[in-house]
Amino acid sequence: MRTSQYILATLKETPSDAEVISHQLMLRAGMIRKLASGLYTWLPSGLKVLRKVEAIVRDEMNKAGAIEVLMPVMQPADLWQESGRWEQFGPELLRIKDRHDRPFALGPTHEEVITDLVRREISSYKQLPLNLYQVQTKVRDEVRPRFGVMRSREFLMKDAYSFHLSDECLAQTYQRMHTAYCNIFDRLGLDYRPVIADTGSIGGSVSHEFHVLAESGEDAIAFSDASDYAANIEKAEALAPNVERPAPSQALETFATPNAKTIADLAEQHNIPATSSVKTLIVYGKADEAGNRGLVALVLRGDHELNELKADKHSLVFAPLEMAKEEDIVAAIGARPGSIGPVGLTIPVLVDRSAAVLADFVAGANKDGEHYRGINWDRDVTGHEVVDLRNVVEGDPSPCGQGTLQIKRGIEVGHIFQLGSKYSEAMKAAVLGENGKNQTMTMGCYGVGVSRIVAAAIEQNNDKFGIIWPTAIAPFELAIVPMNMHKSHRIPGVAEELYTALQANGVDVLFDDRKERPGVMFNDMELIGIPYTLVIGERNLDNNEVELKNRRTGEATLLSIEEAVATITKAIKG
Amino acid sequence: MRTSQYILATLKETPSDAEVISHQLMLRAGMIRKLASGLYTWLPSGLKVLRKVEAIVRDEMNKAGAIEVLMPVMQPADLWQESGRWEQFGPELLRIKDRHDRPFALGPTHEEVITDLVRREISSYKQLPLNLYQVQTKVRDEVRPRFGVMRSREFLMKDAYSFHLSDECLAQTYQRMHTAYCNIFDRLGLDYRPVIADTGSIGGSVSHEFHVLAESGEDAIAFSDASDYAANIEKAEALAPNVERPAPSQALETFATPNAKTIADLAEQHNIPATSSVKTLIVYGKADEAGNRGLVALVLRGDHELNELKADKHSLVFAPLEMAKEEDIVAAIGARPGSIGPVGLTIPVLVDRSAAVLADFVAGANKDGEHYRGINWDRDVTGHEVVDLRNVVEGDPSPCGQGTLQIKRGIEVGHIFQLGSKYSEAMKAAVLGENGKNQTMTMGCYGVGVSRIVAAAIEQNNDKFGIIWPTAIAPFELAIVPMNMHKSHRIPGVAEELYTALQANGVDVLFDDRKERPGVMFNDMELIGIPYTLVIGERNLDNNEVELKNRRTGEATLLSIEEAVATITKAIKG
Repeated sequence: MRTSQYILATLKETPSDAEVISHQLMLRAGMIRKLASGLYTWLPSGLKVLRKVEAIVRDEMNKAGAIEVLMPVMQPADLWQESGRWEQFGPELLRIKDRHDRPFALGPTHEEVITDLVRREISSYKQLPLNLYQVQTKVRDEVRPRFGVMRSREFLMKDAYSFHLSDECLAQTYQRMHTAYCNIFDRLGLDYRPVIADTGSIGGSVSHEFHVLAESGEDAIAFSDASDYAANIEKAEALAPNVERPAPSQALETFATPNAKTIADLAEQHNIPATSSVKTLIVYGKADEAGNRGLVALVLRGDHELNELKADKHSLVFAPLEMAKEEDIVAAIGARPGSIGPVGLTIPVLVDRSAAVLADFVAGANKDGEHYRGINWDRDVTGHEVVDLRNVVEGDPSPCGQGTLQIKRGIEVGHIFQLGSKYSEAMKAAVLGENGKNQTMTMGCYGVGVSRIVAAAIEQNNDKFGIIWPTAIAPFELAIVPMNMHKSHRIPGVAEELYTALQANGVDVLFDDRKERPGVMFNDMELIGIPYTLVIGERNLDNNEVELKNRRTGEATLLSIEEAVATITKAIKG
Repeated sequence: MRTSQYILATLKETPSDAEVISHQLMLRAGMIRKLASGLYTWLPSGLKVLRKVEAIVRDEMNKAGAIEVLMPVMQPADLWQESGRWEQFGPELLRIKDRHDRPFALGPTHEEVITDLVRREISSYKQLPLNLYQVQTKVRDEVRPRFGVMRSREFLMKDAYSFHLSDECLAQTYQRMHTAYCNIFDRLGLDYRPVIADTGSIGGSVSHEFHVLAESGEDAIAFSDASDYAANIEKAEALAPNVERPAPSQALETFATPNAKTIADLAEQHNIPATSSVKTLIVYGKADEAGNRGLVALVLRGDHELNELKADKHSLVFAPLEMAKEEDIVAAIGARPGSIGPVGLTIPVLVDRSAAVLADFVAGANKDGEHYRGINWDRDVTGHEVVDLRNVVEGDPSPCGQGTLQIKRGIEVGHIFQLGSKYSEAMKAAVLGENGKNQTMTMGCYGVGVSRIVAAAIEQNNDKFGIIWPTAIAPFELAIVPMNMHKSHRIPGVAEELYTALQANGVDVLFDDRKERPGVMFNDMELIGIPYTLVIGERNLDNNEVELKNRRTGEATLLSIEEAVATITKAIKG
């Protein structure tokens, strides 16, 4: 492709409404343009990247035995009513009515449609297992679309759904998909981790997320430094500290803390380390038969953070987890948040494992402006339950039993689930089993955010000059930059010759044939992130040479014109 | 691909709600399944065909210098308001509101979005011409979706939009697109015609439709038998007959026709040939300043049909064309339809060229139950205007001046337009011209119905056994059918070996490894329409031979196992 016949659409200025680097660079490099909030047009170079990602995903899905189909964006409401999700989904499910006033959803996912298809098409165990996928435009009416294509309202997704007679068979396909996903992200050239994940509202039991590691990632991931263990921090178990709780050495006594409402205040004003105090969070408890919710106290060591998912799943806690209102706390306990502690509480008390090994610690006295010191479990507080309530922190022992945990940030780009029979039961998707009896199928589902991968790859691969594409998904593999071509007798011929020869070798080349200053051309090629640039200039031609620059390493190599095509082809195509 | 690991989903019965053969065969061959009215899921073999069509379209667009982008399905209403189409479009434009109550359209076409993009990105004449295209899911809320993917509510379309500084430049790109479309349909292996077309509501002047010829086509196309001339019948000019009008030889007289309301009644009851009578249609005339519409009479030879588009465009006629109500006719003329004729009318009379050369002809007498005979123009009727009002018929002279017209039926699968400045003016899409002044761009647009082509190809290529695919877009190029493989010692080895070798040569093979009777397998492969079937049976193996069957010709050829791979590869890949 010649730049003169292309739209580069590069921008010098960083658009003011782009918060994250990938969004900024996708706009600046001319990959996307905003049509409306959360809706983007893919410009030529952006679309090329998207299609390269899509092709790799498709290829690995086919290799793993999945079969491609294509389902509509518009989905009739009755299927969503059958699964129960018409009511469960919030306004991010875009609901519309057609000209005959029939309700439809614009699909954010296709469990209902595929389950309906399979229950009608598949009748016998002989046709199982089956793994169907599509690469398709999804719609999700995000309350606050942001970060460009990272969280947009229309996006391209690969979604696969597998159907089985048994959970063992499901587990096998799940493992195949796990491997296929690793192959996909390996081929994309990204640093990623498959991590143990929560299944959330989609249902099911076993689940892994695939994260592209990047400092800007929204999710925190905990890894063992000595094994393959990796989990989303919301799912990583915080083991009980491997220490005995010391015996009490102090008496329980109150002290005045008129201005200390937080752990940080206690440390600053009273010189009490966060590791010697606890914080007590009050949430609502499970409702009784009359529908009344009581309160539950959650106690964590001062320096630890509540893991909401863990609390949410406790049988005494109202789900979804909700912090109690101040008036309810005051009515039940007689003190305001900031002065609450476990001593003397008459509501259920759940204590995190790390808080449970403290002795002689500090906490609110359930009286405004007062704290206790010298608190000891069992002596001063009884009837509490010790559970895992906190987020793991770096240095915690790994729950796998090997090594200690490290924490990195990641961007979720894939998610696989063992769904089980959530949808097949609700929608009566059964086949005739080997025993001649009807048997409900068990299902898996497997998603890859194709458009999101493009943004995630940039978050992981950029510098102050622009994007640094992995070669497999670069919009072009090589840029040819002839310097001041229009003033030269020799350069045009050499440039055209190399352009033709490299294209013939299958190299995806962008030939910058604009009448621009070399600096402008270099800046554009660096911003766009093309892995290699071939610079053709008068001075090097005197020695019959051209210069190959590596975008990632910055390395520049002189090549003789004769060897250039072979050397470049080898560098790119391997 | 092995059938045992695939979904064939073939059906023996013809689904009762499928009216046309392509819809029936797409369901029976397992290509699509209905999700809801006008919404279809593409099953694996159907999707393969769709993707092959898409790939050919994309390749030819790229070769023609068009650049691919991808625009959203959801389009903000304000752009449609700017172009004026928010009001012009009827309910087939699916209008939705997002969670913040902002109005959007689900795009049936993208003139507004692309014009908005280009007016923001392109600022100088140096960046023109520009031709951008996408292959994208379109939504159109058809009042009566039918014929499967031929007229569905979601469909895949290739739409391109070009931008120019001058109409000459537009005409050049238009010609390139015309050529690219011919290349596309040639490569698809379809019998098609580019025909002169009406621009309809999309606007613009010059326009061609591309039709796949098929007896079931909705459109009639007129061709010259001696030139390249081809036009949609609605656009084909009916030349004035190359004859002198005979002098009057009869006197004007009435006769009683109490039961003759139509041309056919006159012929049957009074032995008057349709070619000697005229029919007079009363339509509404252009409204006067007070908004009142008068009536206009349209006179055609008895055997000819009104061309509504031609009448619609006449300056005296109210547009859109509307037949007058009986009460308005009776009030103005004093007689009911069936007894109306041109003699003595006080409303404007438009006479078709072929009716205008009649002498001594018959028409209604504007008195119920009476007709005139012996009518002669100028003597009995004056003040009429002679115009082209009728549809051409087979045998008419070609308007190009060469040959006579033939008429065939076609399915519209492509449409190209010289739009001019309709959208660029309304949306103020201008660039800095060479003269330093702002200049409104001129535009072309170019559509291909990718999913519709799949159905049209089947309408053109089928027999009583099923589909007969052109090889370029067949779901598989070759089926291997081993007969009773599971009872044979030799067949599995030969079949596997040929399967592997043919795949290695790039042949797209479906290996039918099911434990089915040969008849069932043959029927399925014929229904699916795979161009070649390789039959492996015990008897032929005795002679070291296999049999190659051609789906289209029915021809069967014995090949030695040694030569089979080379011969088949050559037959398919050329």
